[in-house]
Amino acid sequence: MTTPHTATASVEPLRQRLGSRFLTSAEALRDFSEDRSLAVAEGQPLGVVLAESADDVSVALAWANETKTPVSVRGGGSGLSGGAVSYPGGLVVSLEAMNRVLDIDVENRLADVEPGVVTSDLDERARKHGLFFAPDPSSVHLSTVGGNIATDAGGLRCIAHGTTAASVAALDVVLADGSIIHTGARTIKNATGLNMTPLFVGSEGTLGVITRATVRLKPVPEGTPRTFCASFDTVEAAGRAVTSIVSSNPRPEMLELIDAICARLIEEFEPSGLPQPEAALLLGQTVGPTAQRDAEILVAACERMGATVTRIQEGNDLLEARRIANGALMAGRYAVHCDVGVPVGNLVEMMRGVQAISEEAGRGVSILAHAGDGNLHPAVESDETPEDRAAAEKVVDRITELAISLGGVITGEHGIGSLKYRELPLQFDEPTLRAQRALKAALDPHGILTPGRGI
Amino acid sequence: MTTPHTATASVEPLRQRLGSRFLTSAEALRDFSEDRSLAVAEGQPLGVVLAESADDVSVALAWANETKTPVSVRGGGSGLSGGAVSYPGGLVVSLEAMNRVLDIDVENRLADVEPGVVTSDLDERARKHGLFFAPDPSSVHLSTVGGNIATDAGGLRCIAHGTTAASVAALDVVLADGSIIHTGARTIKNATGLNMTPLFVGSEGTLGVITRATVRLKPVPEGTPRTFCASFDTVEAAGRAVTSIVSSNPRPEMLELIDAICARLIEEFEPSGLPQPEAALLLGQTVGPTAQRDAEILVAACERMGATVTRIQEGNDLLEARRIANGALMAGRYAVHCDVGVPVGNLVEMMRGVQAISEEAGRGVSILAHAGDGNLHPAVESDETPEDRAAAEKVVDRITELAISLGGVITGEHGIGSLKYRELPLQFDEPTLRAQRALKAALDPHGILTPGRGI
Repeated sequence: MTTPHTATASVEPLRQRLGSRFLTSAEALRDFSEDRSLAVAEGQPLGVVLAESADDVSVALAWANETKTPVSVRGGGSGLSGGAVSYPGGLVVSLEAMNRVLDIDVENRLADVEPGVVTSDLDERARKHGLFFAPDPSSVHLSTVGGNIATDAGGLRCIAHGTTAASVAALDVVLADGSIIHTGARTIKNATGLNMTPLFVGSEGTLGVITRATVRLKPVPEGTPRTFCASFDTVEAAGRAVTSIVSSNPRPEMLELIDAICARLIEEFEPSGLPQPEAALLLGQTVGPTAQRDAEILVAACERMGATVTRIQEGNDLLEARRIANGALMAGRYAVHCDVGVPVGNLVEMMRGVQAISEEAGRGVSILAHAGDGNLHPAVESDETPEDRAAAEKVVDRITELAISLGGVITGEHGIGSLKYRELPLQFDEPTLRAQRALKAALDPHGILTPGRGI
Repeated sequence: MTTPHTATASVEPLRQRLGSRFLTSAEALRDFSEDRSLAVAEGQPLGVVLAESADDVSVALAWANETKTPVSVRGGGSGLSGGAVSYPGGLVVSLEAMNRVLDIDVENRLADVEPGVVTSDLDERARKHGLFFAPDPSSVHLSTVGGNIATDAGGLRCIAHGTTAASVAALDVVLADGSIIHTGARTIKNATGLNMTPLFVGSEGTLGVITRATVRLKPVPEGTPRTFCASFDTVEAAGRAVTSIVSSNPRPEMLELIDAICARLIEEFEPSGLPQPEAALLLGQTVGPTAQRDAEILVAACERMGATVTRIQEGNDLLEARRIANGALMAGRYAVHCDVGVPVGNLVEMMRGVQAISEEAGRGVSILAHAGDGNLHPAVESDETPEDRAAAEKVVDRITELAISLGGVITGEHGIGSLKYRELPLQFDEPTLRAQRALKAALDPHGILTPGRGI
């Protein structure tokens, strides 16, 4: 793969073909240059394509491919890994104007959407038909379906519904040379040719630009959900309860863990009477006709593992506390977050290890986790000085290495982007990394798409 | 991609490195040369590697890559599309001796297996721990987990659990150059790098050889399953019942359709008192704590759509009739089968179209379908003469074209293999086919792996 240079190619063809959809104002260059991560754009892009169609994207990529201009791709700009940050002298392709829900196909439980539709908007539309869109990352009101697909976004319901990948049936993708391909099918089974759809899911803009998605919807569960919480005196006991719950019936819809530090910060941030555990709180949800029965069984399992305070409620109220956790951690100066995953069976060992790292570093680490799927977001205490932040990042590095040593992954749901690019060799050996880069080069031989990120 | 030649490369290095695991007896060359499809080997392979490890496979592929020898890969030999048929002067890599279940990891609901383990053997092992392996193609007692992964095998439970792809967490794969890569992870979430695992699932030996798989298991549902059947006077009514059931709650574990011809042949083949419908029978199963209630709701939905005879039973007995359907169709001279899929919402139109094609051709067509997921296996009447078989194949072609015109796929679960290779352009436009072949060429530049098949 050649590295694209960033010389000054003439943008005149873009201006001619795209007209007012090609933006070069200082304001546009600034607004479309960063995401919600700490990654910083290192220089101005040469322009922004505010695409309104696959053809617009095709024009943009064909030009970039010919001029070997690096391209960053941007949905809602809610990414946390620097994947959408612009390149100096590069082109930004924004999908935010392609934000229509094109069709809700109730009989086939499918929705056809443009990539820029905000995820919660799609879910709302589906619910009018008794259906819902299962992926619900915390950024659901900001992030777009296309961005969720490009990063294989996770969230709270993955224990029951898998990550975004499980909800994608078919894609239209514009490749680096401007050609438009169609992956997948509207059927449930499809054994024809190579299974390209899930390869594009989570590819972070490195293989092509998604311009249309056919996603799967599910019938809204019957009845009212039940939310339960259980308070534990040790993280070990909480972790053992998680492992026990996920390996048997009934299965919860969500199973989250909030440690004592985080529970305290949430209550300080927005008091709601959230139980304050000695060590950790499990927060779960059950749905469907046996929701109450299932919640009682799961709470009993927690009590057998030593839970002291337990509660079952109708509805979603208890979960609201979980949804403000990130804000509470930031406000409480637990500002450097990470996103590792381990096999659920190793959750106890992982949490114990994080505590040891925290003690050794003499620096607070709060654990917030999508516990049921083994995805942890430890948050490290840090003030705003670069020195202190760098020291906190070192703690994150140690946590990441621990996750790998326990059979885990360096990112569970935020993606590699630019911030974790250097960490790829922690998870992949050389032949595996080489194979992935060969796939990338096959579709993008000049390496114009999100170079130096993702893979 | 260069086409591998089939000149006489010296097999001496294979003999030296593999010893008795390299077979060249006439018996071995015959036994490992064909699968259960109608595809015929067009000449002898030069040898069979009866692999016992990833290293054996690596030795075999590195040699084939160097000598540009075409390689066919074989699991249980139960394929129906000619994917595992040997090449003249080619090498056969058999995984049947790599048949160990290496580990059942109950806490993480994962199993580590060698590719040659028979699928039902894995399921039996898992059930000892209260877990089960969801994929259950009809060939479950013959086919191997590796073969199921390589073809993304389907079966009866896909409406509830998806195809095999949904149950694969991680793979070890030997690439064409002999290098060994590791895809996926043991976690539920994994956003690191490209999502290669599902690309290998269903790739039919064209991208690499799977030498180890980490597959997901699920807790066995509580209680006793309920099986129900409902008899319809028209296929339209049966199809409408299917569409209504899949787009709402509760969700069945299986939902099969057997038309009147097939129901009669099953009863003639092995009398069991299967209800004989005027037009079509729906056969479904519900599981879990509300299995009886769910079956009653689904049967009531069938009755609202006009079902006349309905029945609910505890256990699996009724399903036994479904499992012998293929044998019954063959015995009844409905011998030419196909494997198309349509979006479930188009099932009624598809079945109506198949009937029209049958009438126009003056040739009986029986419909057997995994109705809940839109996968149909129409079986065309044919005697054993080549002329009559060719005429029946023409009917299959028309059925395939109809499926495509209804937004469907040319193969739902059997794969492309050699038999459907020429049909690929029916489903894929030129840029999409080109992209898939670029991915193939990236991992197998000399095109030694299953050339001219799959993709």
